[in-house]
Amino acid sequence: MYPQSLQNLIDAFRRLPGVGEKTAERYALSVIDMNEQDIIAFSKALSDIRTHLKHCSICGNLCEDDTCSICSDPNRDNRTVFVVQSAKDILAMEKTGEYKGVYHVLNGLICPSKGIMPDDLNIDSLVKRAADADEIILGTSTTMDGETTSMYLHRLLQEQYPNLNITRIAHGLPSGGLLDYADEMTLAHALSDRRSMK
Amino acid sequence: MYPQSLQNLIDAFRRLPGVGEKTAERYALSVIDMNEQDIIAFSKALSDIRTHLKHCSICGNLCEDDTCSICSDPNRDNRTVFVVQSAKDILAMEKTGEYKGVYHVLNGLICPSKGIMPDDLNIDSLVKRAADADEIILGTSTTMDGETTSMYLHRLLQEQYPNLNITRIAHGLPSGGLLDYADEMTLAHALSDRRSMK
Repeated sequence: MYPQSLQNLIDAFRRLPGVGEKTAERYALSVIDMNEQDIIAFSKALSDIRTHLKHCSICGNLCEDDTCSICSDPNRDNRTVFVVQSAKDILAMEKTGEYKGVYHVLNGLICPSKGIMPDDLNIDSLVKRAADADEIILGTSTTMDGETTSMYLHRLLQEQYPNLNITRIAHGLPSGGLLDYADEMTLAHALSDRRSMK
Repeated sequence: MYPQSLQNLIDAFRRLPGVGEKTAERYALSVIDMNEQDIIAFSKALSDIRTHLKHCSICGNLCEDDTCSICSDPNRDNRTVFVVQSAKDILAMEKTGEYKGVYHVLNGLICPSKGIMPDDLNIDSLVKRAADADEIILGTSTTMDGETTSMYLHRLLQEQYPNLNITRIAHGLPSGGLLDYADEMTLAHALSDRRSMK
C-alpha cells in the first residue's frame, strides 16, 4: 500500500525499541517533511555509528578512540572501579556528578535462563583490573539477574583478592518514594540496610 | 559527554515528532546493538526517501512514479474526488477499503494565524479537476482549520460549478463513543446531523 521506499523506512524505524507500526509510520512521514540537509545528516549519523564508535579497551565504555574519556582522564581515581551492566549506566551515573572513580562495563548480566553465562561477559578483564584496585563497587541493577551477577562477582573477586574492598550499591526507597507505594522487597531492604543517623 | 558520533545520532532522532532526549538516547543506543546490515539498510532507507519519493502529479499523493497507484488504477472512479489535508489521510481512508473514488491532497489547511493562505495550498489543481467531477467530498479534519478550509472550498467550487455535488464527511459520535464522554461540539453535530432510520 505504501510506496516501497516509504515502506523500507517504516520497517527500519520498527526495529527501534518500543516502536510499533503507527509510530514508525509517523516517524517515516515526518522524515518526508524534513529538509534535505537534516535527512542527509540523519543518514550519515547512522552509518557513522558503525564506523566511528567502539568500546574502550580498558573499561568497555563507548568511545571513538582506543580509550574512553573517563579512563584517559588523569583526575579520575582509577583505584575505585564501578561495575555496570552496560555503557548507558555510565552515562546515568556521570549525570549525577558524584562519582570520581572509573568504570567497568560487563556487557550484560548473568542469566542462565537466557543462556548468558559468566564466560559471555566482560569478567576476565575485571578480575585483572581488580589486582590494582582498592575498591570494586558492584553497580548492577537490583533485579534478579543483577543480584545474581553481583553475588557471583563478589565470590569470584573475594577468592582471588581477600583484602579487596568489594561493595554493593545501596538498595532502598528511591528519592521521593512513598512507603505505601513501595514493594515488599524494597521495604525489606530499606529496613535491613538502615543506617544510624549522626 | 557522549562520543560525538553518538551525540549526532541522538540529535538526529530528536528531530522526530514526540521524541525527547531520553527516547532519542534509547533509540541511538539500540542502534549500537543492531547488526551491521540493519544499520546500512536504515541509513539507505533514509537517503532513498529523498531521492525516490515524490508527489503524484494528479492528486499529490506520495509515490515513486509520476502518478500514484490510485490515480493510475482504471478501476477507481475518477469522477468522485475525496479532498484530504495530507497524504497520510489517504492511507487511513484506504485501510477502510470503503472508498472507490480518487483523492486530492491539499498539503495543509488554511490557517491565517500561521500565515497559511489558500494560495499556499494545492487548490488551483483541485478547481481544475472539479470540472470533470460528479462529486467532491470535503474530507478535511473536523477541527477549526479543517472547517474553515472546507467552507472556503465549498464556496469556491460552488461559484465555479453550480451543479457540482459538494459533500462534507459526517461529523458526529465516533464508533464506540459514549455520550457522556463526548464534547459539546461533537454532541451538537451528532444531534443536528441526525438521520431518519429506515
